[in-house]
Amino acid sequence: MKNILAKWESLCAKSGVLRFVDINLRGIGQVMFQDNPVTGAIFLIAIAWGSYAAGAPQVAIAGVVAVIVATLTAQWLRVDEKSFASGLYGYNGVLVGLALATFLAPSALLWVYVVLGAAVSVVVMLGTTNALKPWSVAELTFPFVITTWILLLATYGFSGLAGTALPSGSVVIPFQPYEASPLRLVELVQGVFLSISQVFLKASGVAAVLLLAGLAVNSIAAAGFALAGAILAVATAHLLGAESALITGGLLGFSPVLTAIALGTVFYRPSWRVAIYTAVGTIFTVVAQAALNVALTPFAIPALTAPFVLVTWLFLLPRQRLEEEAVASLEKPGATA
Amino acid sequence: MKNILAKWESLCAKSGVLRFVDINLRGIGQVMFQDNPVTGAIFLIAIAWGSYAAGAPQVAIAGVVAVIVATLTAQWLRVDEKSFASGLYGYNGVLVGLALATFLAPSALLWVYVVLGAAVSVVVMLGTTNALKPWSVAELTFPFVITTWILLLATYGFSGLAGTALPSGSVVIPFQPYEASPLRLVELVQGVFLSISQVFLKASGVAAVLLLAGLAVNSIAAAGFALAGAILAVATAHLLGAESALITGGLLGFSPVLTAIALGTVFYRPSWRVAIYTAVGTIFTVVAQAALNVALTPFAIPALTAPFVLVTWLFLLPRQRLEEEAVASLEKPGATA
Amino acid sequence: MKNILAKWESLCAKSGVLRFVDINLRGIGQVMFQDNPVTGAIFLIAIAWGSYAAGAPQVAIAGVVAVIVATLTAQWLRVDEKSFASGLYGYNGVLVGLALATFLAPSALLWVYVVLGAAVSVVVMLGTTNALKPWSVAELTFPFVITTWILLLATYGFSGLAGTALPSGSVVIPFQPYEASPLRLVELVQGVFLSISQVFLKASGVAAVLLLAGLAVNSIAAAGFALAGAILAVATAHLLGAESALITGGLLGFSPVLTAIALGTVFYRPSWRVAIYTAVGTIFTVVAQAALNVALTPFAIPALTAPFVLVTWLFLLPRQRLEEEAVASLEKPGATA
Repeated sequence: MKNILAKWESLCAKSGVLRFVDINLRGIGQVMFQDNPVTGAIFLIAIAWGSYAAGAPQVAIAGVVAVIVATLTAQWLRVDEKSFASGLYGYNGVLVGLALATFLAPSALLWVYVVLGAAVSVVVMLGTTNALKPWSVAELTFPFVITTWILLLATYGFSGLAGTALPSGSVVIPFQPYEASPLRLVELVQGVFLSISQVFLKASGVAAVLLLAGLAVNSIAAAGFALAGAILAVATAHLLGAESALITGGLLGFSPVLTAIALGTVFYRPSWRVAIYTAVGTIFTVVAQAALNVALTPFAIPALTAPFVLVTWLFLLPRQRLEEEAVASLEKPGATA
Repeated sequence: MKNILAKWESLCAKSGVLRFVDINLRGIGQVMFQDNPVTGAIFLIAIAWGSYAAGAPQVAIAGVVAVIVATLTAQWLRVDEKSFASGLYGYNGVLVGLALATFLAPSALLWVYVVLGAAVSVVVMLGTTNALKPWSVAELTFPFVITTWILLLATYGFSGLAGTALPSGSVVIPFQPYEASPLRLVELVQGVFLSISQVFLKASGVAAVLLLAGLAVNSIAAAGFALAGAILAVATAHLLGAESALITGGLLGFSPVLTAIALGTVFYRPSWRVAIYTAVGTIFTVVAQAALNVALTPFAIPALTAPFVLVTWLFLLPRQRLEEEAVASLEKPGATA
Repeated sequence: MKNILAKWESLCAKSGVLRFVDINLRGIGQVMFQDNPVTGAIFLIAIAWGSYAAGAPQVAIAGVVAVIVATLTAQWLRVDEKSFASGLYGYNGVLVGLALATFLAPSALLWVYVVLGAAVSVVVMLGTTNALKPWSVAELTFPFVITTWILLLATYGFSGLAGTALPSGSVVIPFQPYEASPLRLVELVQGVFLSISQVFLKASGVAAVLLLAGLAVNSIAAAGFALAGAILAVATAHLLGAESALITGGLLGFSPVLTAIALGTVFYRPSWRVAIYTAVGTIFTVVAQAALNVALTPFAIPALTAPFVLVTWLFLLPRQRLEEEAVASLEKPGATA
């Protein structure tokens, strides 16, 4: 792996085109926090397969167009070079493109919307970076969520854009438990895998396996926490009595998967205390996902990865030391800085 | 009083168990900003009485379980010792426990929810503390509000948890004034007292008197501002034509009571200018309470103490000097730092 | 112009009454970022004409009462003198007064509401100033929006205040395009002018011309960007298929007009790169206006200038250098500080 990356890096150093491809692939990898072009390439294959299998190839195309537009916008705005090279100005763009093409009907205006959304996602990313500076907390997918929400909400006021796959608006009513929906193990396992593929808005077991492979290529821990997060999320949702279709479709698990990777492997180093903290955060993300599904019912828009952003911010902001060795150190255990 | 506290303190210094009890009692007292175990004990009696009188003893038990879980969670997270000893990691927990047991039907999952909510309230408290550091503004009950909102919203998606006492969702329609609901003085007085007891989600005059006593034990000014705030809130709501049942039930007054204590006695020192500022803040909290009741109608969740948090933050953020002597000082009158 | 201002300034220096008038006129001018009493006076004439033409003179009176109350409140709170003299504590007040009198039926309580709202808008302005300090981003009309939203929402809970002109609440449903509403050029031109007058909640071409004149008196660039922003907004809304009545009434254009002035002339210096950035921001404000119209449907309140505040904040926070000369400089192009 290291050899492949070294060879690729030397090729990129010589060719502006390959460097551009490299940055866009890293952008796709950063959706799951991986700064690695091979991971990004495998993720792209997963996206392409998931779109093709769902009979909606325009979704994958929109994702590619969006990440390219986002990268070009970042260049025009002369962003910080190091973050740019790591793909940090691309991951929100690719998600905006995938989401718009997933929820809206194909039309010429859809592509205008994809380009506008991808460009604005970079502005919002830059703004979020500055907004969060006092706390040195990561932007996560907040730029994707806020940009896409605004674009999707607006379609209800524009006859040029039809939200064919958007949820329908209604007032909040108590959930009626389905009388006969006992889940079998095979369905729970399906829920686990689709929880992973839904990070890219795909309902595909093959895509899920590819995504896990893409993670493992760069970080075994990330793949492990993603899988463990998905299992914990499906189990939690099932025990609390969530709707079966949501569980098996992976729709209550994709945000918890991201929370598990972020808390367990990106912002803390793995340890027993970190694992417990991550587990509580993952479980609470399932609750937050259900809560946001309800809260957004009157607005007829999807929650996207907002539950992940909300809970991960809440669990990162404390900045408590979770490492075991801190106990034995001479420093005060409760120092919050 | 001082003697009792001194004796209690010396007992706590010797016994870890008593110290633990002390911290939990202070946590209950901190709901109304009082760092005093006797105040906390009197508040606990008020909660117990209110729960018993309402035929729902599980509410008081949930409050006690929640404050203990919150304290243990804070210990596990190795929080700042001084804040910990003052009960600052307990007051959101006790409110989460009381609210969940008040709005949800008793069940095994309710207790899982109480433990999860109490633990998460500590994480959110730590996060809020860091989030607010640039402005040195207090956390107030924001962690309680946000944690409980997420937990309550999610119940609409979980068949395992039934929100029997939650409001029903609907779209916003203009309020139809009741033709024949002229309030008599006795009903307004009832509204004043229940405005105080509703701080702990109780509709009980006895609880209100106990709460005033608990406040007076630690701070006569706090008791005075609480009572004055309740009177001003009921009068404002009545003059603006609010629904009679909300006024007499204390449901438009508990947030203003907290605003009055906070602005009048905790964050500013009492003076004429402070009293005027506090009165405007208290009146505006009544408006904000009505506004949030309306805004939350489509979501079918209660406003909790969000109006207090919102208005008190708005009135604390200016950080203007309100003391009389500032006029005569040599400093620029408008310095905002 | 300079002579008139110099003479007026010398008169104000001698008379406390004229100084007070000066500050209030500047407050009205600051609604469109102009610190100029002549601009403010012309704007006031536009407001008066628009109110008179609409048969609602009380709206203009409420605006005047509100700006005076806001100025007096700022004085009582001993605010920063320089900002005070520039009218920065008045522009939110005048908008609160205009909005309350526009959306609520005349009554004695309306005037209590106008006074309360104007006073609170100053507290919120001070709070917003401090809240935004870490990012040195301007307050814009956020204090107006949040104060007015709270006051309008609350009227649904108060029988003393009737929101006769408020939208009716409903759940979000897809927008049905009007079969036969092709807009003629004359209607699009009307939409452009009303987009300008709606900044002050007026639907009047005469008021629009007066407002442009008031802008031009102080800044030709501001008048140019206002007109260009209105044209771009109407064209965008039309191309996306927005409802004809909203376009011709200027209801999708007033927030973009403010975004165009703010991004193009106030916070950046005009240049080609800035013009492109401003155009993208202006177009996205149209989308955000449609989005907020939809998002606020369940709450039955108007979006006011929230889309302008939201998008302008998002486009100001990046703080990227947009000036051409930066390319040739030796500094790193992507420095985000």
